[in-house]
Amino acid sequence: MPTALPSGSRGPASQQGMRRQNLALVLSTVAGSAPLSRATVAGRVGLTRAAVSSLVDELLGAGLLVEGETAPSGKVGRPGRALSLNADGPAGLGLEVGPAHLGACVVDLAGGTRVWHRVPALNRSRPAGQVLTELAELAGRATAEAEALGLRIEGTVLAVPGVLGPGPGHGDPGAEQAATDRHGTERDPADRNAVGRATAGQRARGREAHEWVEHAPNLGWHHVSLADHWPAGPLPVPELENEANLGALAELWSGGESADTLVHVSAETGIGAALLIDGRLFRGAAGYAGELGHVPVHADGPRCTCGARGCLEQYAGARAVLRAAEIRGTHRDPVAALVDRARAGHAPTRAALRRAGEAFGIALTAAVNLVDPAAVVLGGAYAELSEWLLPAMADELAVRVRVRPWDPDALRASRLGRRGPLLGAAHVTIQRIVNDPARLWD
Amino acid sequence: MPTALPSGSRGPASQQGMRRQNLALVLSTVAGSAPLSRATVAGRVGLTRAAVSSLVDELLGAGLLVEGETAPSGKVGRPGRALSLNADGPAGLGLEVGPAHLGACVVDLAGGTRVWHRVPALNRSRPAGQVLTELAELAGRATAEAEALGLRIEGTVLAVPGVLGPGPGHGDPGAEQAATDRHGTERDPADRNAVGRATAGQRARGREAHEWVEHAPNLGWHHVSLADHWPAGPLPVPELENEANLGALAELWSGGESADTLVHVSAETGIGAALLIDGRLFRGAAGYAGELGHVPVHADGPRCTCGARGCLEQYAGARAVLRAAEIRGTHRDPVAALVDRARAGHAPTRAALRRAGEAFGIALTAAVNLVDPAAVVLGGAYAELSEWLLPAMADELAVRVRVRPWDPDALRASRLGRRGPLLGAAHVTIQRIVNDPARLWD
Repeated sequence: MPTALPSGSRGPASQQGMRRQNLALVLSTVAGSAPLSRATVAGRVGLTRAAVSSLVDELLGAGLLVEGETAPSGKVGRPGRALSLNADGPAGLGLEVGPAHLGACVVDLAGGTRVWHRVPALNRSRPAGQVLTELAELAGRATAEAEALGLRIEGTVLAVPGVLGPGPGHGDPGAEQAATDRHGTERDPADRNAVGRATAGQRARGREAHEWVEHAPNLGWHHVSLADHWPAGPLPVPELENEANLGALAELWSGGESADTLVHVSAETGIGAALLIDGRLFRGAAGYAGELGHVPVHADGPRCTCGARGCLEQYAGARAVLRAAEIRGTHRDPVAALVDRARAGHAPTRAALRRAGEAFGIALTAAVNLVDPAAVVLGGAYAELSEWLLPAMADELAVRVRVRPWDPDALRASRLGRRGPLLGAAHVTIQRIVNDPARLWD
Repeated sequence: MPTALPSGSRGPASQQGMRRQNLALVLSTVAGSAPLSRATVAGRVGLTRAAVSSLVDELLGAGLLVEGETAPSGKVGRPGRALSLNADGPAGLGLEVGPAHLGACVVDLAGGTRVWHRVPALNRSRPAGQVLTELAELAGRATAEAEALGLRIEGTVLAVPGVLGPGPGHGDPGAEQAATDRHGTERDPADRNAVGRATAGQRARGREAHEWVEHAPNLGWHHVSLADHWPAGPLPVPELENEANLGALAELWSGGESADTLVHVSAETGIGAALLIDGRLFRGAAGYAGELGHVPVHADGPRCTCGARGCLEQYAGARAVLRAAEIRGTHRDPVAALVDRARAGHAPTRAALRRAGEAFGIALTAAVNLVDPAAVVLGGAYAELSEWLLPAMADELAVRVRVRPWDPDALRASRLGRRGPLLGAAHVTIQRIVNDPARLWD
């Protein structure tokens, strides 16, 4: 019997679900190309002007849209009034814990970054509770600043460099094994209430939210429950998301990236990739997709920390590159150390980065041949090394991706770089509102 | 501004779309676990019994459901009547052209194979018109046999070992470059009218249908328009689909495969893979996903026909394995030749297959680390070599996939083997009906 029945899990269609879906359709249409007149919106979504006006009125009433100046219609005649997203209404708070920094930022509904804090903090050797107490203080300050701007925080997401999960006691005895989650494209953080699956909205809300850090080696966190360490007070416990995933989504949501099926590489000590498919995060069957760092580059190469041989990390991870560059000592920011030497013309560093770029090119050949992304984006801290890494990566891809066309411009450095995860964390809330505005009042 | 707005492309929700979606929900629920009573269906889909009864009556009237004996409810009381799919109603016709065979089969709505023909035919050196005329005769015979069984053919799909496209003059100047199609998971052949996107059903229908063989090297076909070569007569021109894709879908639809995110390998002269994500075909951004045969296995290895070095095909393609096995001459069925020698204990063949399995293991390590499939299935003709290939593949995966858990049972041979593509071709029509029954009368 057929087992692949995507429709079967969607729940029945209903009047309420229909209006909910059409509210999202109108809001996302305006979000995509504001300012727009009501008539233009009606034309684009394929509903009557009367139906659209009723939906628009509801969105205006909820403070999600504003109606202002004339829309540039190009037509002669009575000027219409133009709809835009309300940049002074609901907002998303993004937080971040890194090995050497804390971050908090606020993004408004129109996508503008309104509050931005990224402060140094040596988190690696401190207890999680202490780190999170400091982060909560920063979050409180960002919230107060946002409120002073007239914004209203509607959701908080925390970016963490680690493997996350729903935590123990959430019904899944395999949670340790499949520490993020077990399904495919549906678990995009902004997609939990996505409209295509929206009739099950209530059931879905929060269902998959991560509350548990399975393992974050660069923080020294292992089995950390966020709820247990988040300080009591007015700020709700944030939702967790992996920082590499948020970096990839930020590329699409605020980095100006137009390709929505892409491989987003982020690297430092470890090398990870996030796969976006049709604009949504693809996590794999058990939450492990994107392990670019352990793609075999030279099958008989040196032993990796994972136990296998010749993994990409053994050639392109920051530790391997520092070693090859003959840079000794410990570095709070190894990528910055590499950038300094490369910029100064340090030959071993340049050679080490070239070799790392070649290894990236071999591993990415596998990724391009298997996944066929429209873009490969070098993000995170490594974006700062793109001047030295990209040429070698491009050379390898050019000689190795031969069975299919390969556009050299499809390989590029992220414009967001290290800012990506924090921006992405704030944008999750905005995307959820745009995808399902009724979540704010239901 | 946000660019990832999956909801924006879906069109508005409507009364008509709502009923359409609920018809699909009821039909797919019955398809998933027939026989079921009306009350059980209502419970599962979350609609009232009255609403479900009205939907059921429409599906009974259209000949998609039948209502028969008592459903096994386990409860005491008045026995209910049980709903099942009508195995004597609509059906799908699958066709196949291979280098050395033609095929036609008919699958009914309940998933049963009712007609099966797979006949030898040396197609490689013959004009496409001649091959298709013979295929049309076979299709006519299969249709007559199906009709004699009371079945009604509702769609015909032709499996071809090649790169397909909408053909020239379909508006896309890049069609030669991106010969299949340009989007992600949406283009599953059974998903074109899928319910989640169903309000755009009319627009979507047939929009993406392939009509053009860009290149099928093993048939000697290049730029073949199916419509130009299909004989005039009562049989409509079939829709084309790549045979490896259909083989993968068949695994899910009739092969008993339970994992719906999987890598399905099919190999002979070339090595390809099809990626299923949540039960749907993932084609990549430009239609090139799954090029497993050109994943680098040894970055400095021998030159491949594609121009790159050390591709999997240079170690595991049938030609490479025959060479390594010291088997000379031309073979109408190279895989059968390898099976014969391996079974006879021919040491060079066994060694060549072991080496091929190791190379598969290295390339699949990349696939598992990047895509995180729940299963890796060795399908197509190579399923017949699984006795000799799988152990080496399993060994490599065990020592190389280390950064994440790897279940050795996730690697398996297809039970359908060479039958997959033809079965898949017939099942496409069945899946479309289950996913959107209203397509039959709209």
